Amino acid sequence: MSALSDTQNERDDRRLPIDRVGVRSLRFPLSIRDRDAAVQHTVATVSLAVDLPHHFKGTHMSRFVEVLHAHGTELTVSNIVAMPHELMKKLHADKAHVEMKFPYFRSKKAPVSGAEGLLDYGVVFEVNADKDSTDFVLTVEVPVTTLCPCSKAISARGAHNQRGTVTLAVRFSDPVWIEDLLELVESSASSELYSILKRPDEKHVTEAAYDNPVFVEDLVRNVAVKARAHPRITWFRVEAENYESIHNHNAWAMIEGGAAPAAK
Amino acid sequence: MSALSDTQNERDDRRLPIDRVGVRSLRFPLSIRDRDAAVQHTVATVSLAVDLPHHFKGTHMSRFVEVLHAHGTELTVSNIVAMPHELMKKLHADKAHVEMKFPYFRSKKAPVSGAEGLLDYGVVFEVNADKDSTDFVLTVEVPVTTLCPCSKAISARGAHNQRGTVTLAVRFSDPVWIEDLLELVESSASSELYSILKRPDEKHVTEAAYDNPVFVEDLVRNVAVKARAHPRITWFRVEAENYESIHNHNAWAMIEGGAAPAAK
Amino acid sequence: MSALSDTQNERDDRRLPIDRVGVRSLRFPLSIRDRDAAVQHTVATVSLAVDLPHHFKGTHMSRFVEVLHAHGTELTVSNIVAMPHELMKKLHADKAHVEMKFPYFRSKKAPVSGAEGLLDYGVVFEVNADKDSTDFVLTVEVPVTTLCPCSKAISARGAHNQRGTVTLAVRFSDPVWIEDLLELVESSASSELYSILKRPDEKHVTEAAYDNPVFVEDLVRNVAVKARAHPRITWFRVEAENYESIHNHNAWAMIEGGAAPAAK
Amino acid sequence: MSALSDTQNERDDRRLPIDRVGVRSLRFPLSIRDRDAAVQHTVATVSLAVDLPHHFKGTHMSRFVEVLHAHGTELTVSNIVAMPHELMKKLHADKAHVEMKFPYFRSKKAPVSGAEGLLDYGVVFEVNADKDSTDFVLTVEVPVTTLCPCSKAISARGAHNQRGTVTLAVRFSDPVWIEDLLELVESSASSELYSILKRPDEKHVTEAAYDNPVFVEDLVRNVAVKARAHPRITWFRVEAENYESIHNHNAWAMIEGGAAPAAK
Repeated sequence: MSALSDTQNERDDRRLPIDRVGVRSLRFPLSIRDRDAAVQHTVATVSLAVDLPHHFKGTHMSRFVEVLHAHGTELTVSNIVAMPHELMKKLHADKAHVEMKFPYFRSKKAPVSGAEGLLDYGVVFEVNADKDSTDFVLTVEVPVTTLCPCSKAISARGAHNQRGTVTLAVRFSDPVWIEDLLELVESSASSELYSILKRPDEKHVTEAAYDNPVFVEDLVRNVAVKARAHPRITWFRVEAENYESIHNHNAWAMIEGGAAPAAK
Repeated sequence: MSALSDTQNERDDRRLPIDRVGVRSLRFPLSIRDRDAAVQHTVATVSLAVDLPHHFKGTHMSRFVEVLHAHGTELTVSNIVAMPHELMKKLHADKAHVEMKFPYFRSKKAPVSGAEGLLDYGVVFEVNADKDSTDFVLTVEVPVTTLCPCSKAISARGAHNQRGTVTLAVRFSDPVWIEDLLELVESSASSELYSILKRPDEKHVTEAAYDNPVFVEDLVRNVAVKARAHPRITWFRVEAENYESIHNHNAWAMIEGGAAPAAK
Repeated sequence: MSALSDTQNERDDRRLPIDRVGVRSLRFPLSIRDRDAAVQHTVATVSLAVDLPHHFKGTHMSRFVEVLHAHGTELTVSNIVAMPHELMKKLHADKAHVEMKFPYFRSKKAPVSGAEGLLDYGVVFEVNADKDSTDFVLTVEVPVTTLCPCSKAISARGAHNQRGTVTLAVRFSDPVWIEDLLELVESSASSELYSILKRPDEKHVTEAAYDNPVFVEDLVRNVAVKARAHPRITWFRVEAENYESIHNHNAWAMIEGGAAPAAK
Repeated sequence: MSALSDTQNERDDRRLPIDRVGVRSLRFPLSIRDRDAAVQHTVATVSLAVDLPHHFKGTHMSRFVEVLHAHGTELTVSNIVAMPHELMKKLHADKAHVEMKFPYFRSKKAPVSGAEGLLDYGVVFEVNADKDSTDFVLTVEVPVTTLCPCSKAISARGAHNQRGTVTLAVRFSDPVWIEDLLELVESSASSELYSILKRPDEKHVTEAAYDNPVFVEDLVRNVAVKARAHPRITWFRVEAENYESIHNHNAWAMIEGGAAPAAK
């Protein structure tokens, strides 16, 4: 093996450090410990990157995947913050970036019948670190119902409503549970969603949504009010996107709030 | 150039003819003449393929793209049927397959204010041909509103509704206009969609949808009844998919009808 | 609850049976027992459907999701065939359709260093059943390397190569392991892929691919020869798609072989 | 119409201004004047947004689409900067955001045979404006070939190569042509791509790529060196992503450089 040249370690003379280099779109099975202390199995799409000083020609791509495998498949909000430090060590880097996006499930009971079923969400763990600091952004993507206040106010009967997605990203002082963020968002919409609804549940959800109309503007404000009041959330960015039932385009709103740490 | 070996023309001894070989996911700008005799510009994603006899090792991929360029960018339901025959000739093949998928626009007036705006649809031209026959399947993807009859019937107020997509594929005896198919589908839903709706239009659309609830089952049946009665449609396949506003999964239904020509 | 009308059970007079109706794009966590008797956790995207006789207005969508939950999350090639029968029973239907698509992982050792890492594949289980018969189609999507024979033959040095995807669907007389199909495909390409390759491995893989050039045509023929010779495979359809490194479109080929059972 | 209440204009008491609100994922046909003074027709996916002061409950979504239609379909780097100002005026807003993403085509001659064909790229126009300033970011997505220097150096024959995508975003002092950016990127890779290559062209491209190996690190540095030297580019962000032919994940690198204007 010693005969094989190490092209990546060659000197580069363009005097250009690289901000981030690594691997992307790598699928990897993970398990996550949820709020109820149960372990949930899922499959993540992973990005890993480090910075590269100007004098190196290339990074060593296989080491990213080795660090991922060495870390093991049980992931927690606590142990994921170790991963960028493992990358920095293994790759002799000053900064590292870890991003994992995965579907996440929660068992929910239908509001009247109590019929129980799993609902799926999207979750992203993003960690940026250097020698002195670690920055964790936790993002949840939550499907909800929105019912249009304008349509309700002007129409003699009915009101257009639709599925929407709320994307809430937060930084925090102490760890928050994914489930806490999901509930924060779901309680801000016209109604939350369920995978199983029997007829009395469907009646309940229909009437609840009609009684609680929200624009995308209301939705992001409702979430923002709760995020600001949350004792552990130090920064947030909330987006709401409605797949409008009366248009073939989407309505969208965004609020960013709180103090973000200095950019890496 | 004669010095370059022609690997594709080499003999293959596995005695396996190939059903289809060619190019895929090629983007190409096109223009389409619409029902109002106007020319509409769009961008298609193109697949082109031929069969390959067992004794040839490979096809000549560059010729597919040459046929596409030689055909020119103005496409009609009439001249697209020439393309598989051009492929058969240029590639010495017995069968050819051409598929083009593109966004298509129609200007629509809002139902009360008359405000005019473009709505986008998906259209697919698929042509399969051999020496003796040509089979054209025209597909439209139409966004619509559906309002749930069950939710309306059981709820004291409101009814869940959502955007849905209807995909209608047809074969025909004489050419049909894309616009005819779009209207056939849009008149089968709770309401059609618009890109611009002022408040009186939104009131109209909301109430019209509430007065005209349809399940995905109703929607595909409504389309099927009209497709069967259409004098030029000889075969159809209609699918409806609802992005349910109360679930994070979709409701879906399909009916196929009429006599399909023998498979190629 | 008895007061709530059952709209779905109402009579429909359009005299149009519906070929398939149900739910789509539902994400659900599953576990699969693999060839090494280990249990693998993954997340599936699920479609469930039944036929609907002409005299019913609608199906009962919540029951599909109930059947899925009642089935439990451990899935095998054996117990998935029970699911369409559970759907037929619960929904009083004559036909049922179950489709589950999920990422699947296999641990592979790099060819020289023996470094071990997970590689991801796509797998689809599709089951169609009526009272008398059950039709199971197992599909694997396998990423591979292809190196162009023509480019190698005509060039003084190098040869263009690229990642490609082979999609192999099979019907079988006795169950086949997913891993058997993955190996059947991987042994048909210029090289298989790995998640971790150290430098001696990269040398090995590069030279192996250069020594074993295949067109998409060769690739589908190589797979077809093996699928025909396989004692348990009764039907197959193999597609190969190359993300050509010299074009921005893809090369594609397909062979279908063996006797398919009568369509449902 | 005066009878219809204007819910959006109602007072909101949550004291939360909204950073951005508007429409998304709206498809619209456009024409672009290219460097050769020809007009090119394409289809854009459009996002339009404004800020919303804390005392308004909602924005007026239909006005965004009206501004888009009123602007007309001929778009230039010059006239698109007017659009955010039209949005601010029509929606009484202080800030506006316009984003248009579209496929873009360029006719290229194969390097030896001269065979001519269209190659497709992705382009994004993004404009953020307030009363006093306008910030335009022009982004191009360019497909290229990359051949691995390490694989070439360690292997007795061949070298793995693959399609990659380079995404270059720039701000500028004076307008730059899309074509200038495409050429800047294409000259930085192992080889540019073509839609039609005859055998002598394929030989040329294969050998040229072999003679010019680049890592993703080299590729972003090559682009960065040229972007820094460009007299009109004041800021850039370049990313390169390789669809590695030996892995099922991607290699990725990024450099950002130059002085960005103050964030809006």
